[in-house]
Amino acid sequence: MATIHEVATKWVADMEFASQIDDHIIRLDTVEAGGGHNNGPKPKALLLSALTGCTGMDVVSTLKKMHVSFSDFNLIAKADLTDEHPRVYSKIVLVYQIKVKPEDQEKVVKAVNLSKEKYCGVSAMLSKVCPITFSIEYL
Amino acid sequence: MATIHEVATKWVADMEFASQIDDHIIRLDTVEAGGGHNNGPKPKALLLSALTGCTGMDVVSTLKKMHVSFSDFNLIAKADLTDEHPRVYSKIVLVYQIKVKPEDQEKVVKAVNLSKEKYCGVSAMLSKVCPITFSIEYL
Repeated sequence: MATIHEVATKWVADMEFASQIDDHIIRLDTVEAGGGHNNGPKPKALLLSALTGCTGMDVVSTLKKMHVSFSDFNLIAKADLTDEHPRVYSKIVLVYQIKVKPEDQEKVVKAVNLSKEKYCGVSAMLSKVCPITFSIEYL
Repeated sequence: MATIHEVATKWVADMEFASQIDDHIIRLDTVEAGGGHNNGPKPKALLLSALTGCTGMDVVSTLKKMHVSFSDFNLIAKADLTDEHPRVYSKIVLVYQIKVKPEDQEKVVKAVNLSKEKYCGVSAMLSKVCPITFSIEYL
């Protein structure tokens, strides 16, 4: 049977919405300049959170299988937005920052590549939108 | 100057991440079957929340300019996921549910079309990933 994802998003007031994903609710809003009250993140940037979370989980899962331990792991995603409407991302830069033993760095590269090329659905989707560059920094 | 969106996502434990967008933090996690503890929404579905929030804000903003009042407004997004890896959305169905006076229904259609065709950056991006069908239900 096909897997289906579903969200239900409810207007709260002004530009604010509450979006329900399974049993979680996240608020979405915009900044005052857009008529909002900044009561939640702006919708578009959720694409970047999704990207970092999706590939981050892949890397955690692969490093676990490889028995590689790490103590810190951050993902930074920056995207350039077009000026013309509809405003879309024209470039995404994704940086993995991770602390592993020097001898495990090669395994991190392997885990990131596996996510990028095989497992990360959000990377696969967003790479149809704009180029994504991936890099790793060791903490 | 180009507009840039940036998020910083930090690994918390197991499959859980905390993603910072401006001054907001959202938790991301996966279900137990994936090694997580369901402490936050799954990353991929954030794309659907982003879609509903982005077009929802457009519609609110346009209806305000048109002096159309509404009392309820929900957006439901459902997406089919491919079975093969990387698992991506193959189809998105987006439904706007809104309560307006019958004589304002045509303006809602106009507002939705404006968002879809001109303003909604997330629709524009996700329509490069898979087909999106839009429909309106009046409450």
